[in-house]
Amino acid sequence: MEDGEEREWRAKAWTYLSSVRSLSPLIQCITNFVSMDLTANTLLSAGASPAMLHSPNESPDFTPKVNALYINVGTLSDNWLPAMELAAQLASKLNKPWVLDPVAAGASRFRLKACLDLISLKPTVIRGNASEIIALAKASFPSTKGVDSSHDSTDAVEAAKSLANSSGAVVAVSGAVDFVTDGNRIVGARNGVPMMQKITATGCAVTALIAAFVATDPSHAMEATASALAVFGVAGELGMETARGPASLRTHLIDSLHGLDQTAVISGVKITAI
Amino acid sequence: MEDGEEREWRAKAWTYLSSVRSLSPLIQCITNFVSMDLTANTLLSAGASPAMLHSPNESPDFTPKVNALYINVGTLSDNWLPAMELAAQLASKLNKPWVLDPVAAGASRFRLKACLDLISLKPTVIRGNASEIIALAKASFPSTKGVDSSHDSTDAVEAAKSLANSSGAVVAVSGAVDFVTDGNRIVGARNGVPMMQKITATGCAVTALIAAFVATDPSHAMEATASALAVFGVAGELGMETARGPASLRTHLIDSLHGLDQTAVISGVKITAI
Amino acid sequence: MEDGEEREWRAKAWTYLSSVRSLSPLIQCITNFVSMDLTANTLLSAGASPAMLHSPNESPDFTPKVNALYINVGTLSDNWLPAMELAAQLASKLNKPWVLDPVAAGASRFRLKACLDLISLKPTVIRGNASEIIALAKASFPSTKGVDSSHDSTDAVEAAKSLANSSGAVVAVSGAVDFVTDGNRIVGARNGVPMMQKITATGCAVTALIAAFVATDPSHAMEATASALAVFGVAGELGMETARGPASLRTHLIDSLHGLDQTAVISGVKITAI
Repeated sequence: MEDGEEREWRAKAWTYLSSVRSLSPLIQCITNFVSMDLTANTLLSAGASPAMLHSPNESPDFTPKVNALYINVGTLSDNWLPAMELAAQLASKLNKPWVLDPVAAGASRFRLKACLDLISLKPTVIRGNASEIIALAKASFPSTKGVDSSHDSTDAVEAAKSLANSSGAVVAVSGAVDFVTDGNRIVGARNGVPMMQKITATGCAVTALIAAFVATDPSHAMEATASALAVFGVAGELGMETARGPASLRTHLIDSLHGLDQTAVISGVKITAI
Repeated sequence: MEDGEEREWRAKAWTYLSSVRSLSPLIQCITNFVSMDLTANTLLSAGASPAMLHSPNESPDFTPKVNALYINVGTLSDNWLPAMELAAQLASKLNKPWVLDPVAAGASRFRLKACLDLISLKPTVIRGNASEIIALAKASFPSTKGVDSSHDSTDAVEAAKSLANSSGAVVAVSGAVDFVTDGNRIVGARNGVPMMQKITATGCAVTALIAAFVATDPSHAMEATASALAVFGVAGELGMETARGPASLRTHLIDSLHGLDQTAVISGVKITAI
Repeated sequence: MEDGEEREWRAKAWTYLSSVRSLSPLIQCITNFVSMDLTANTLLSAGASPAMLHSPNESPDFTPKVNALYINVGTLSDNWLPAMELAAQLASKLNKPWVLDPVAAGASRFRLKACLDLISLKPTVIRGNASEIIALAKASFPSTKGVDSSHDSTDAVEAAKSLANSSGAVVAVSGAVDFVTDGNRIVGARNGVPMMQKITATGCAVTALIAAFVATDPSHAMEATASALAVFGVAGELGMETARGPASLRTHLIDSLHGLDQTAVISGVKITAI
């Protein structure tokens, strides 16, 4: 039973990656300064088309043309928040999928409120680490240490379900195992290697990849999200085979993502219902 | 005849690269957040000296000291536009060469207008992809899909000539073949590999390299531009020999640019009049 | 005598690196756009925890949680300066160590004044190249060419002592030899390779590393600073063994920093009193 289900997920993940490569979805990214390079390169390597346009002067003209929107609050400021909110409003209104990465959601009152306000604009998917998802579910400050997870992702499953139910979003929690829930079902993706956490912005990059996967099939956001997490993890596992540290892993991960073939995906993806 | 001309271009390209290495021109870069890292590393590897100073509080003191200015509108906002305009005005007034990369020129009315306003400040060179150059030549919104080229560069030759004539700038159009025109003459540079398009900001980086080449010989902007495009392409070709994907290509490209010797340039550069 | 002192420094450097790895200090980084990626990856590879939060809306909540603050003025603007000043004030008030990188301090009146204002907020350490430290000690515009050093670091020793005495900060001057002074004692760190200057933001990255080292032992900022400079240099030397240019050196440097073991540090670090 589970074996058949696992096999189905592997096929699904390959289908999503193939769709990204053939459709090359245009992803508007309003993301933090640290992650822009890795995020754009992740999307390009996967076959998507990134566009780092953020200005409120542009989104009314540009957001209608994109296939999905990705918002990441990493280097949040009051300058950028209105740009995020406007683009999110446009995406919601236009029925375009949009994905939120609530980096360090609990680091300050300002940031927590910004994330909660963005969530009220109906993201399709929210992906964070355990601390971030717990902070959002609790919706009260203070809660976390900083940008890194200080909780295990298993701790966050209940928080994720609660956030999914209250927001209507698919919620993903990254960790040793990545969990994805729509508030009802839960699946776990068990790909990736620990050293990926020693590369800045891998979390941001995989959230952008989720946006690209979801762009190809907005009505199955949970499946697309789990697939993106697993595929990125498989690329990391392959990259790790020749990596000598975090910087070469980063290079090899992107190379692997670009080169992933059906065999690698089908044999590598580990997604199961929980 | 053509053989002699090609040989001349190869020698010219080597002379420009050697001049950049010996003069180490100081290039003020007001560029997008995605490309800053690759742009700075490209300039350093080529022997130039990048300076990412953009504030209008600084340009009156700083722009007079630079050898060229590079402006790239990738992550444009109404915060940054006045900084770009002031620096461009200063460069023009001081007779310093300045180079414009009109990223995604047709993505929004705001962006198109910003690019046209910047062009009125007399850039020495404008380099874009086919869609961008066509958008600027048409000067009407809407025109393009996003940041990637959806036209082949050959389509854009007429647009480039028209833009060169109306603006007074040398115009370069990147593509499978790169075209450079002053509105009258056209040369083509046939270097580079397709995978360079899978690395974010290679277009931005080569525009910065154009600024460095032009800085060494402002009165021959067309020759310097074609040479920079070809030299960057040769570095990409050499990098591709050992690349296993876009991320390792990026590494090898920069390493190759740093290590390029006379033989590699002379045997690699492919520039011809069209 | 000197041999014993050198041996002591080597042991000290290893102790600092070990402390960073075991304590994983949280470092708030308010830094320039060019260097954010390399800075975050440097801190992660060394075992520290970077947080690129800068907004004045957040620092009152966030700075109290961090172990050190790192401020770098590379892409300074009047938008960001108040954020830097507020965070520096908070750090000083909370007795948290904070470290300043006065990039291109002499490039403009605005920038020089901003750096001097920040210095009045009592940084624990200031690290710059010779031109920057001389500009700060002279405190008058004009003084330097741009972001790169146009003086040898030996020229700057007197300026560094003077700046250390007037500011109360430990002052480090990077160059072929790195000098560190508290205004009284001077030590020299002789690690690193020239090609590190061909990688953008290595100076910024090592200043962040200083913040991480100082975070583990704020009452010995001079020792922590010299150790960070030497350890980063050792990582560069190891990286150079297999580098083929600046981009692969960058990768190998970060990989080496992550993998440095006791033998490599003890045998590699070259710090001596001067």
